[in-house]
Amino acid sequence: MSKEITSRQQDYSQWYNDLIIKGGLADYSAVRGCMVIKPYGFGLWENMRDVLDKMFKDTDHQNAYFPLFVPKSLFEAEEKNAEGFAKECAVVTHYRLKADPNNKGKLIVDPEAKLEEELVVRPTSEAIIWSTYKGWIQSYRDLPILVNQWANVVRWEMRTRLFLRTAEFLWQEGHTAHATQQEAMEEAEKMLHVYADFAENYMALPVIKGIKSPNERFAGAEETFCIEALMQDGKALQAGTSHFLGQNFAKAFDVKFSDKENKLDYVWGTSWGVSTRLIGGLVMAHSDDEGLVLPPKIAPLQVVIVPIYKGEEQKATISEKVNTIITELKALGIRVKYDDSDNARPGWKFAQYEMQGVPVRLAIGARDLENGVIEVARRDTKTKQTVTLEGIAIFVQNLLTEIQENMFAKALTFRNEHITPANSWDEFVQLLDTKAGFIAAHWDGTAETEEKIKDLTKATIRCIPLDNQLESGSCILTGNPSTQRVLFARAY
Amino acid sequence: MSKEITSRQQDYSQWYNDLIIKGGLADYSAVRGCMVIKPYGFGLWENMRDVLDKMFKDTDHQNAYFPLFVPKSLFEAEEKNAEGFAKECAVVTHYRLKADPNNKGKLIVDPEAKLEEELVVRPTSEAIIWSTYKGWIQSYRDLPILVNQWANVVRWEMRTRLFLRTAEFLWQEGHTAHATQQEAMEEAEKMLHVYADFAENYMALPVIKGIKSPNERFAGAEETFCIEALMQDGKALQAGTSHFLGQNFAKAFDVKFSDKENKLDYVWGTSWGVSTRLIGGLVMAHSDDEGLVLPPKIAPLQVVIVPIYKGEEQKATISEKVNTIITELKALGIRVKYDDSDNARPGWKFAQYEMQGVPVRLAIGARDLENGVIEVARRDTKTKQTVTLEGIAIFVQNLLTEIQENMFAKALTFRNEHITPANSWDEFVQLLDTKAGFIAAHWDGTAETEEKIKDLTKATIRCIPLDNQLESGSCILTGNPSTQRVLFARAY
Repeated sequence: MSKEITSRQQDYSQWYNDLIIKGGLADYSAVRGCMVIKPYGFGLWENMRDVLDKMFKDTDHQNAYFPLFVPKSLFEAEEKNAEGFAKECAVVTHYRLKADPNNKGKLIVDPEAKLEEELVVRPTSEAIIWSTYKGWIQSYRDLPILVNQWANVVRWEMRTRLFLRTAEFLWQEGHTAHATQQEAMEEAEKMLHVYADFAENYMALPVIKGIKSPNERFAGAEETFCIEALMQDGKALQAGTSHFLGQNFAKAFDVKFSDKENKLDYVWGTSWGVSTRLIGGLVMAHSDDEGLVLPPKIAPLQVVIVPIYKGEEQKATISEKVNTIITELKALGIRVKYDDSDNARPGWKFAQYEMQGVPVRLAIGARDLENGVIEVARRDTKTKQTVTLEGIAIFVQNLLTEIQENMFAKALTFRNEHITPANSWDEFVQLLDTKAGFIAAHWDGTAETEEKIKDLTKATIRCIPLDNQLESGSCILTGNPSTQRVLFARAY
Repeated sequence: MSKEITSRQQDYSQWYNDLIIKGGLADYSAVRGCMVIKPYGFGLWENMRDVLDKMFKDTDHQNAYFPLFVPKSLFEAEEKNAEGFAKECAVVTHYRLKADPNNKGKLIVDPEAKLEEELVVRPTSEAIIWSTYKGWIQSYRDLPILVNQWANVVRWEMRTRLFLRTAEFLWQEGHTAHATQQEAMEEAEKMLHVYADFAENYMALPVIKGIKSPNERFAGAEETFCIEALMQDGKALQAGTSHFLGQNFAKAFDVKFSDKENKLDYVWGTSWGVSTRLIGGLVMAHSDDEGLVLPPKIAPLQVVIVPIYKGEEQKATISEKVNTIITELKALGIRVKYDDSDNARPGWKFAQYEMQGVPVRLAIGARDLENGVIEVARRDTKTKQTVTLEGIAIFVQNLLTEIQENMFAKALTFRNEHITPANSWDEFVQLLDTKAGFIAAHWDGTAETEEKIKDLTKATIRCIPLDNQLESGSCILTGNPSTQRVLFARAY
């Protein structure tokens, strides 16, 4: 196996890049800060998308599609939102290229095709969507609007990382409109729970549900709910956010409705999104020094079968048996591949599928066949066992469930072991540098203190957990009174 | 019913717009030439996409995702392709906005954030994809690459029409790479047949498979295959294209592979795509003056059930029965909605679902319930019948099949009646202005003649049918010798 992976201990960041590139998930592209999602990585995203899409539809949302471009005058209408994103906007200024008169075969931007109004490539779609909702909403009968969009967005980032931070990324963005504040707030919370359910039960990724501090709130929101996950290096990763927008966008775009008493009021809104960034979190939470470890429920490939044979005759005999196993596995809805290619030796194949994080590998040779057994290797624990061929499909199905549960349990134990209280500034700083993870500490509730802690330590408040216990104490930095601990961490 | 539709006879173009807007498929947007695809229209696109996606996967293709932006230097590498699309490119020139110093709360493009190299918003992705394939292909073992992408693309159009011609549209683009010319050609033809299968068997849209004349060929292709459909006004619509790219893009991006004998050669390529434009064709082929008529296989909603009642007690009794029918229909995989809202009278609902083209409407009142019957109305023929409740689900399932077949048969008859031979220039011109449709006429095979016919009549060569019969004759315009008839039409 020629594709060496840097170990986590040696260089965590390089380990991550190695997994993404050598595991075949994505590739760098010719465009600064943009990546190519390769078929294996896209297969993973498709599985994630399909599960989420079903969850959205089961909660009565419908998909729609809004323009990629936002005219500058609409973009700037909601001031906080515009201010928050202005610094990272790709801007279309022209609509035509023409032949370069000085350079045969080359093109230049045609100066005569300058747009009267520049178009922002959407970094998020509140502006274009609320300007549309204005035409859709007159009365309470038009509400609620429960719409989601799967789309690409662009945020010009100076320092990019595959999946974690790219100039263009894929995501879904829900945008809902409601007649009452309470209904909008309930929607924002409901979608947070949907995200948590998805993260924990499909990605095997334990998350803490919480509320962002005002500093970390989405630009234009009144309240931002989030789910926060922990990576193996002790850094946190925001895995999804759901925003209660109040009437901010309705006011910016003059979206009013008449209620049952025929009184006019502004509409209440929410927005919520998760992105291909989740794949980065998935990789960093579960994988090891041999490669990716993918949870069975969303793995593009759940089972790979490798035959071990000498000569065509043995191969044919083995393949005949394997084909019946494949039929059984497929009947159970299991995604399985039979790799009987002659290009590579079994050992090389084993390493390749380990690298790609296929949850279960089956290997079978001529003697196994005679003995009615097959070798079963699981990726998460790297253990092997010999199992009788009788009932192998059900065995594999149960094993996939066990792997899914084991991955979650392992991540949960790690996460829980990395929530540590700190009661003094020294302790706080030391924990950050030695143990990392989430640090539960008192904070005086001011933006200034949060900012100062960030400047001093690079740690931010990841969230105020939803189920937080009240407890009086004094702020870790200023000593001022505090009513609860919040969770700090360095984060991706 | 307040939403009046212009009749086809009165104004075909306005009829089309009315259907799209009032049928709830799409809406105009605040961005010039871009549209909003509304939930009902997007539901239709999702059904089309899911069927096509399965067909692609069944023919061994995988999905991937490539960047939205194409650096200008890559875009111009394949000269014919660049020349073909240069005139309609949206160009990103800056990556930041900043506060306007002269206008509080407004933003301006930051002149200091000018890109060194402009980025073209992809009008099609051959350039960015072939520049990526260069890194993926070394030997014949890396071939074929069979990749598809679902994406948005932008082509700056001066005159736009909802779905038919919009600046941004959604599509899929397959991009494959092969070791031999023959294999690439077979791939291009195979995908044409996939498209024809989809159009005929899912969209109920009969198509003619053919080859484009050099004038109408995709910029950068050696051969363009197409499927051509006929609209009710006698104009043609190109419903899908599949291109044999030869080695053009491999040469432009220096993509070589070593074959089994270790000889280096350029890779052979194809690309193929269909877009949301298909929805425009679907609407124009089947709909009538009462609204949309959608084929059951891809209709977002296949069946709607409307209760007819006085008072809550009747409603409850009817609803109880309807719920058992819904359970049965859903068990058969049928997409059904029960509209028991009190907001509108049954007659209004009937008109609304007719407008939206729901294939089957069931209506049931208290007396029907007593008599054990239900009223079944089909959208395509606008006929009604009373059917016993016993076995209603199976009845509806069969009816959906019958509607699908009837819609195809009707469109096929219309299409076949509108393929007319013309043997003189006068006849040709007269047919175009009176009967329209496809006109089968001799052409001398030159680009000049084709261009001249287009200038004189606005008719273009839609295709040279794949199964064309050879027949000697003389060109409709020049009288020069010709070996076969080709199909002319005015087109969308």
